[in-house]
Amino acid sequence: MRQAGRYMPEYQALRERHSLLDLCRTPDLAVEVTLQPIQAFGFDAAILFSDLLIPLDPLGLPFDFHSGEGPVVERPIRSRDDVDALRRFEPREELGMVLEAIRLLRRELKVPLIGFAGAPFTLATYAIEGGSSKSLARTKELMYGDPDTWHRLAGLLAEIVSDYLRAQVEAGVQAVQLFDSWIGALDEADYREFALPHVRRIFDGLEGLDAPQIHFGTGTSHLLAVQREAGGTVIGVDWRTPLDEGWKRAGGDVAIQGNLDPTLLFAPRERLLARVDDVLRRAGGRAGHIFNLGHGILPGTPVENVRAVVEHVHETTVR
Amino acid sequence: MRQAGRYMPEYQALRERHSLLDLCRTPDLAVEVTLQPIQAFGFDAAILFSDLLIPLDPLGLPFDFHSGEGPVVERPIRSRDDVDALRRFEPREELGMVLEAIRLLRRELKVPLIGFAGAPFTLATYAIEGGSSKSLARTKELMYGDPDTWHRLAGLLAEIVSDYLRAQVEAGVQAVQLFDSWIGALDEADYREFALPHVRRIFDGLEGLDAPQIHFGTGTSHLLAVQREAGGTVIGVDWRTPLDEGWKRAGGDVAIQGNLDPTLLFAPRERLLARVDDVLRRAGGRAGHIFNLGHGILPGTPVENVRAVVEHVHETTVR
Repeated sequence: MRQAGRYMPEYQALRERHSLLDLCRTPDLAVEVTLQPIQAFGFDAAILFSDLLIPLDPLGLPFDFHSGEGPVVERPIRSRDDVDALRRFEPREELGMVLEAIRLLRRELKVPLIGFAGAPFTLATYAIEGGSSKSLARTKELMYGDPDTWHRLAGLLAEIVSDYLRAQVEAGVQAVQLFDSWIGALDEADYREFALPHVRRIFDGLEGLDAPQIHFGTGTSHLLAVQREAGGTVIGVDWRTPLDEGWKRAGGDVAIQGNLDPTLLFAPRERLLARVDDVLRRAGGRAGHIFNLGHGILPGTPVENVRAVVEHVHETTVR
Repeated sequence: MRQAGRYMPEYQALRERHSLLDLCRTPDLAVEVTLQPIQAFGFDAAILFSDLLIPLDPLGLPFDFHSGEGPVVERPIRSRDDVDALRRFEPREELGMVLEAIRLLRRELKVPLIGFAGAPFTLATYAIEGGSSKSLARTKELMYGDPDTWHRLAGLLAEIVSDYLRAQVEAGVQAVQLFDSWIGALDEADYREFALPHVRRIFDGLEGLDAPQIHFGTGTSHLLAVQREAGGTVIGVDWRTPLDEGWKRAGGDVAIQGNLDPTLLFAPRERLLARVDDVLRRAGGRAGHIFNLGHGILPGTPVENVRAVVEHVHETTVR
C-alpha cells in the first residue's frame, strides 16, 4: 500500500517538477512512479500509483492537495441539492488516463498489477468533510440526519467505483483493492445500514471477473466479519488485530492481507524483522496470506528498511 | 466527557474574553465553566474543566492552543537529552490552581465531581509529536527505537500523573478518570510492553483511596481485557464495541462506562434516543453501568440534544 511515494528519493525528484495530481493524471508519469518501488525493492506485485479521490473531480467535486493539509475539496457536499448536482460519469471515458497508465504498465511489468478505488463510505467522508477529519461529524450528521440523501450519494459512488474497478480489470490489472480506510469509525449496526449495501453492490458488479478482490479497512477489529459478508476474496487487516485472530474473524475460507504496523519500518532492524516473523508465524504458511503493511507506508520511512523487509519475507517464505 | 465546552453558548461567551489556558489555570474560571453544563442539563456528576496537557508545562514542555490546529508543543521531545531535561515536579505545588478549583467546586456542587489526567502513552504522543497526529509515527519511532528512553519518559509521566490524581482526590474529587485516548493505535503486544507497566503504576499509586477509577480509551475493541488488567475499577468503552460485548471483554466484575457515539448528538431526535435505548438495553439495568458518550462531546453539538439525552436517561433508568 502506497508502495510508491514520498519516502522514495526517486519520487521526490519527480515531485519537484510535477504536482501530485499531475503524476496521477499523466499516464507516463503514473507509470514511472508505479515502477519505482518495483525496480528498487522487487515487490511481488505492483500497485498502481493513483489517488483515492481521482473520481471526485469528474463527479463535480474538484479538489487539490494543499501542502501539509492533505486533500481539500473546493465545495464539500452539505445537502440533498449538492448530491443531486453530482454527475454520473463514465469512468472508461473520464478516467481514461488511469486506464491508459494500466495498459502501459502491463507492457513493462513482470509482476502482477493491482488496481484500486475508494469505498463509498471513505470517499463520502472526503466529499462531505472537504478533507481529512478525526470525528467525521459532518459525514455522520448527513448519514443519520438524511439517510435518503446518504444512500443516494453512497449508491452513486458505488456505481461509479464498480464501473471504474471493472474498467481497470479490463485494462489489465490482475487484482483490485477496495480501500475503506475510515470505515472503522462505524459500529457494526451502522455498517450494516449505511455501508454494506453499497460495498456489496461494488463487489456484485465485479462478478465473473478473473481478479482477486482485496477488501481493506483500518481500525476494523470489530468489523472484519461483516466486511467479509459485504464482499471480497481477500480481507485486509491492520496491525491492531493479530493476523491469526483477524483471519479467524474474517472466516478461515477467505484469503487475508496484512498486517505489519507501518511505523515498525522506523524501528531498529532487529525489532522490525522480529515483528515480520511474528506476522509470518501467525499466517503459519497457509495458502491465501498476502504479506503487507497494515496501512500505507509513511513519509520519511527509511528505504533500507523497506528493502530489508522485502528481502526477509522472500528468504523466509515459499512463493 | 468534555461535558463543558465549545458547544455551549455560555462557554463561548467566556472564551471571548479568556484563552483556553486561562480558563484552565484560573480557579474561578475553571469553576464557572465546570458548573455550566450542570446548571444547564442536570448531569449526575460533574467533570472538572481542565486539559490533558496541563502537566506538560511544569514538566518543561510549554505549549499553546493554535486556533483550528489544536495544541502545539513548542519544543517536542526528540531525544534522550530532551527526556533527561524534563523536570520532576510536585503537582501539589505547581498544579495548585487545579486543586484550588476542585476545593471551590466541592462547595458549589450537589453532584459528585470527577477529576482526570492523561495516561502516559497519550501524554507522550503530544510531547513527542508536538500536537495531534494520525500515524503517531514519531512516538512509535522513539518507543521502538529507544525503549529505554521511552520507559524513562513514560515512567516520569506515570509518577507525576499518579501524584496529580492522588492530589485531586485529596482536594475533593470523588472519582478520577484516566484518559488514554490514543492508546487504540497499539496492538496488545505493544500495549503490554510500552504502556501497561506505567498505567499500572498510576493505579497502584491510587490504592487505598476511596474513589472509583475510570480507565478510558478509544479504538480499544482489541485492548479492553488488557486495559482492565492494567487497572481501574471502571472501564470506558467507545461506541465501536457494543456495550454488552465490551463489558464481557473487560470482565463482568468491573464497572463499565459508555458508549454513545458523540456524533449521534447531531442526529434527529428519534434516531438519537433509539440509540440511547440500545445502550441502556445492552447494559440491562445491571449495577455498575455509567451512561456516557464513547468519546468527548464535539464542537457544534446542538445543546437541545444533550438535554434530551440527559432527560431520557433519567426517565428510563433508576438512579
